[in-house]
Amino acid sequence: MDFKARQQKLRDHLATTRFDALLVSHLPNVRYLCGFTGSAGLLLVEETGSIFFTDVRYDTQAHEEVKAAKIVIARKSPLAALGEFLEKRRKRSRRQTIGIESEHFTIADKKRLSKFRWAAVRLKDAPPIVERFRMVKDEGEIDLIRSAVQLGAKIYDRALEVLRPGIKEVDVAAEMELAARRGGAESMSFETIIASGPRSALPHGRASATPISRSAFVVCDFGVILSGYCSDETRTVWVGTPSDDGRQAYEAVREAQQAAIDAVKPGVTTGEVDAAARKALRKSGFGKYFTHSTGHGVGLEIHENPRVAEGQKEILQPGMVITIEPGVYFPGKWGIRIEDMVVVNAGGGEVLTPTSKEFLAV
Amino acid sequence: MDFKARQQKLRDHLATTRFDALLVSHLPNVRYLCGFTGSAGLLLVEETGSIFFTDVRYDTQAHEEVKAAKIVIARKSPLAALGEFLEKRRKRSRRQTIGIESEHFTIADKKRLSKFRWAAVRLKDAPPIVERFRMVKDEGEIDLIRSAVQLGAKIYDRALEVLRPGIKEVDVAAEMELAARRGGAESMSFETIIASGPRSALPHGRASATPISRSAFVVCDFGVILSGYCSDETRTVWVGTPSDDGRQAYEAVREAQQAAIDAVKPGVTTGEVDAAARKALRKSGFGKYFTHSTGHGVGLEIHENPRVAEGQKEILQPGMVITIEPGVYFPGKWGIRIEDMVVVNAGGGEVLTPTSKEFLAV
Repeated sequence: MDFKARQQKLRDHLATTRFDALLVSHLPNVRYLCGFTGSAGLLLVEETGSIFFTDVRYDTQAHEEVKAAKIVIARKSPLAALGEFLEKRRKRSRRQTIGIESEHFTIADKKRLSKFRWAAVRLKDAPPIVERFRMVKDEGEIDLIRSAVQLGAKIYDRALEVLRPGIKEVDVAAEMELAARRGGAESMSFETIIASGPRSALPHGRASATPISRSAFVVCDFGVILSGYCSDETRTVWVGTPSDDGRQAYEAVREAQQAAIDAVKPGVTTGEVDAAARKALRKSGFGKYFTHSTGHGVGLEIHENPRVAEGQKEILQPGMVITIEPGVYFPGKWGIRIEDMVVVNAGGGEVLTPTSKEFLAV
Repeated sequence: MDFKARQQKLRDHLATTRFDALLVSHLPNVRYLCGFTGSAGLLLVEETGSIFFTDVRYDTQAHEEVKAAKIVIARKSPLAALGEFLEKRRKRSRRQTIGIESEHFTIADKKRLSKFRWAAVRLKDAPPIVERFRMVKDEGEIDLIRSAVQLGAKIYDRALEVLRPGIKEVDVAAEMELAARRGGAESMSFETIIASGPRSALPHGRASATPISRSAFVVCDFGVILSGYCSDETRTVWVGTPSDDGRQAYEAVREAQQAAIDAVKPGVTTGEVDAAARKALRKSGFGKYFTHSTGHGVGLEIHENPRVAEGQKEILQPGMVITIEPGVYFPGKWGIRIEDMVVVNAGGGEVLTPTSKEFLAV
């Protein structure tokens, strides 16, 4: 990853704003800009260079990982180290304006910083700047995302080997998570969802000790983190002998998902992609059972911009990576969701997820 | 869990402050007060009752889980739903002051709330109130923590079955994580650390693809989440034929850890507990290799108050649950850390972690 180029891009952008520097505190943004993967760090990106602050636990790791920044190891917290660092600054002719990431910075941390006596510095709330850069993935990132998606699909193959009536949801999740680790995943990108029977009607039904029941769907929503990048996939399978209404609802979701994928291309808004899925489900009579949004960006975080939701005006650009995941839910009965990851190419959307979406009964 | 009693305790406390109500946004605090385990929710605790806001994905789950609060399902975000809810409030003779959790609330969310036109409401930054309640665990919580610690110890037994020279760190982690899932864990409480050889000198050396090497220590730091509560344990084992200096350093850490445990009792500050470990390591000549703090509280979160660190003035009370985890680190060579979870009882500290701390070579 070319961290220097990423920081330079940020500097070029800052030069067009009222900010002289940006204090990057959101850890995925820190990682994106300088490579640090630990849990405590702050990166100050200034016109002439960058300074990274962490604590003593990360001394060795910071020196191994951090690129294109001077490293300061704090005796106390990185925030306090930053405060003291800026206190030592000499007075300038013009005060330096440092942006803070207002979507992540807490009120208490801002108050803590405001207690330092800075002659030359003023803090100002900044919008999500690095997140906007991160929305469009570079080639290196897309390669890493491809690998994560491949591994994600592989652990679903493992799920299908063990998925049968009577096995506990958590045991299916356990097998998938073991396969993820064996495939090199650092961790799962979120708590694995294996939701069977009436639980499949919960859009966020984490794997429970419930045994998988017959004559209903199982929603499997899962993802891995591989080399820092997240995968996100959902498949829904029927257990036992398929019912007609189950099959019919499944095909409706599948068509809606395909309609949304077909709508993906540069220049289209994410709201239009969402509308394509919604329109298809309305047409098949399932519109009111689709209760959530169609998707979201994925990258270093499992939920990133852009949101793919009703009315969203974000315009798709080549290099964006989003999920397309419409679903229908019948409370007390069952639910269905199908989710792929899609990269926006010049010509349209390319589905990264290799898993079949054919109706499947086990 | 008696959510009603917890909320009442909060109300009684608020009555002694300038806050008429508290907007609880930190999810572990939300869970503690009303039982909700999802990823999007806000709880407004007022004098006369509580209102819980979530989005449509959590409709069914909220109605199953949330106790002692009215439930509002937001069409958009819980924050927007709260804003609109308060806009509908009639004017009071006196404006209501609602505290926001300043350690967690972001600058941007505060700005979003400030755009609503409230006749009767004023927001004010609040200190960590619920976190202070959560520091002292009730009996139900301690039972859950005991169970989590037991499961944590069990997965370490599994690690010892597979730990041998040549096996990859991640494969040891994978086996532990499978055992955790099979034992009912929702997930791990943090990314499993299996750090061997020179990597054991990194206090936060996550499991990597590195094969476990001979003639060095392996630091295993791991925890599970069971019924919402975290465990946290570290053991360090030697691989191959033990060296004298390895054994000597191990015994020094073990003695320091015991000294800190012996210092635990109600009325003592956490700084004094930290000092006990530090003093023991200074005495054995390893003081300068102990580079982090001695421990932290554990509960619904893996890192909670109180901090057990140099100079901390927090006074131990019965019901507090903390880790005691001194370590020594020789960069480029190896490191050693030993960690137990300890509950503060009337008579002193009770070690919850059942795993042996005898020097062990595999």
